[in-house]
Amino acid sequence: MADAGLDALLVMTEPEVRYFTGFLTPFWYSPTRPWFVVVPQNGKPVAVIPTIGAECMARTWLDDIRTWPAPTPEDDGVSLLAETLREITDGSGSVGVPMGPETSLRMPLNDFNRLAEEIAPIRFQDASPIIQPLRMIKSEPEIDKVRHICGVLSGVFEALPNHLAMGMSEIEIFRTFRKRALDAGADEVPFLVGGLGEGGYADIISPPSERQSAPGDVLILDTGAVFDGYFCDFDRNYAFGDVSDAAKRAYDVVYRATEAGLAAARPEATCADLFHAMQRVMDEGGAMGNDVGRLGHGLGMQLTEWPSNTPSDETVLAPGMIVTLEPGMTFAEGKVMVHEENIVIRDGAPELLSRRAPAEMPVIG
Amino acid sequence: MADAGLDALLVMTEPEVRYFTGFLTPFWYSPTRPWFVVVPQNGKPVAVIPTIGAECMARTWLDDIRTWPAPTPEDDGVSLLAETLREITDGSGSVGVPMGPETSLRMPLNDFNRLAEEIAPIRFQDASPIIQPLRMIKSEPEIDKVRHICGVLSGVFEALPNHLAMGMSEIEIFRTFRKRALDAGADEVPFLVGGLGEGGYADIISPPSERQSAPGDVLILDTGAVFDGYFCDFDRNYAFGDVSDAAKRAYDVVYRATEAGLAAARPEATCADLFHAMQRVMDEGGAMGNDVGRLGHGLGMQLTEWPSNTPSDETVLAPGMIVTLEPGMTFAEGKVMVHEENIVIRDGAPELLSRRAPAEMPVIG
Repeated sequence: MADAGLDALLVMTEPEVRYFTGFLTPFWYSPTRPWFVVVPQNGKPVAVIPTIGAECMARTWLDDIRTWPAPTPEDDGVSLLAETLREITDGSGSVGVPMGPETSLRMPLNDFNRLAEEIAPIRFQDASPIIQPLRMIKSEPEIDKVRHICGVLSGVFEALPNHLAMGMSEIEIFRTFRKRALDAGADEVPFLVGGLGEGGYADIISPPSERQSAPGDVLILDTGAVFDGYFCDFDRNYAFGDVSDAAKRAYDVVYRATEAGLAAARPEATCADLFHAMQRVMDEGGAMGNDVGRLGHGLGMQLTEWPSNTPSDETVLAPGMIVTLEPGMTFAEGKVMVHEENIVIRDGAPELLSRRAPAEMPVIG
Repeated sequence: MADAGLDALLVMTEPEVRYFTGFLTPFWYSPTRPWFVVVPQNGKPVAVIPTIGAECMARTWLDDIRTWPAPTPEDDGVSLLAETLREITDGSGSVGVPMGPETSLRMPLNDFNRLAEEIAPIRFQDASPIIQPLRMIKSEPEIDKVRHICGVLSGVFEALPNHLAMGMSEIEIFRTFRKRALDAGADEVPFLVGGLGEGGYADIISPPSERQSAPGDVLILDTGAVFDGYFCDFDRNYAFGDVSDAAKRAYDVVYRATEAGLAAARPEATCADLFHAMQRVMDEGGAMGNDVGRLGHGLGMQLTEWPSNTPSDETVLAPGMIVTLEPGMTFAEGKVMVHEENIVIRDGAPELLSRRAPAEMPVIG
């Protein structure tokens, strides 16, 4: 912060507030109330939050918790936060707010503009360049949590053929999967997408439909389940009965692309290197493009975090980074195949957090 | 829009994009990619979205879907969106962006500032004053969805004593509840909070702990479950064995406060009227305050929406508004009692969407 010329940081999104305080609550799901944490250059963070959160925040390591009785749209924490920022910065200098890629402003824009006026001559400055590298490297306790939820979901995926049957609809499949994940020990399953289609699926972001599984269908399920606030994010593919040779070949190509990614995931390699290692295998295997826009990403307190495995992301991999390897390709008109594994970069070979997908598509029915 | 002097609206959050397009996907859980929809004064909305969403967006009523291969942090849709806004506004005028209470800016602030520069002399203006009243009044198909999920969860709550047992931990109780809700037909249970404590709970926003239920405990579960993108949001209280008379009295007071809210919920009454009707009963019943900050709120595509039942919210109730009645009070040091029902304002008496809570606390064990 001193190097960046910042007297304090101001964070307001769920993962960033939690990162600096340990504050964990599902209450963020309500968009009504803003929550703020100010991180001074020296000393503990200060919480400026709605009264409803005081009891829960008091269980974190913070001592200085300032509250207002939100919601009060006429002044939802703005003057209390302005006062706090003036106090912590001695009335001048710069306050860092994350403004870069993959961030958002979790407060009304009108209130942010009013805050900026109220604290002048204190200025806001982009804090993304210092927060992003900090959060990208995970501590061992953070890695333990991701490893745990990856292990839980690996078991759920492996046992899934015993719990699905030919003829089940997408909606039934999703419901079965969620219940299995809860039974196995996931705290929750906030993210579940999938696709089902004859010889391959077209799209993996639509909600599940009433469409029933039939012989020849390929199913993908891609989940972000949570343990103690940390995510896994990986997928698995299944064949209903005998599927087309094209789908089997695509599965093999993408499986081998993941192997190439695992071989390339070393400290000092870049995310672009990871991309090219995987893309090369898929190009040789007849890939017709990919709508996802990248072949994996960071993972931790959020389902997706920086960096991205794209040709232009020159982020250098370092021990402690958790990333997904997510090679995907269109292998026929409207048919996609996507694989995904979660790994942590280590000195030498990476550690697999998800248990490796089977080399051939498991068959249901 | 014409009255407000707006040539177009720009929306970018999940509920607002869905409101104008019908676009429903869990993919929003990934914070990486921004999504934009431009609503012109005349004609259909235009989607400016990552390529990964093209297939899913094509199933909505939109025809004009413009995509870029996100993530590309160097230009994540900014120039494509700027071009679209210039085209739709003929290069001048005002574009409305929601900037008021309960909104946020779901794109990086740096990109928003760059967008504002690129589209000059087109200006951004606050669209909250026109979007908020529009979304507050629900259509009958919207009400049908909320009624459906309220009915499903009413059944889950009513049957819950058969599925819980003395000694179960908070974590086990939450897991059981989630599984019951999925079995009963909820698409998902994104929001579940609760509290468990001897003679009453202290706080309802902390995540569940290993604490085991014991005789004399009061349990609250408050859930936001979803059906086809629409939420219910209500809670129920339970007694483990015989609980204190103070807790039983508080339950009765808050039950009667809800009755007062039901009696006051008429077209032309204000949210402040609702607040006072409920608060009066709780004041007479010995309430020692309330950390929640309001006694209910709007409900629909989001777990919480405008308006708020506070003394200062002068929103006039109108047929079609879905609101929660959520009286809550501290009745002893560190002991809170909260009730909640979901209703739709009708001509005359409101329609209960949740089935009314029992007049006495159901007993478990």
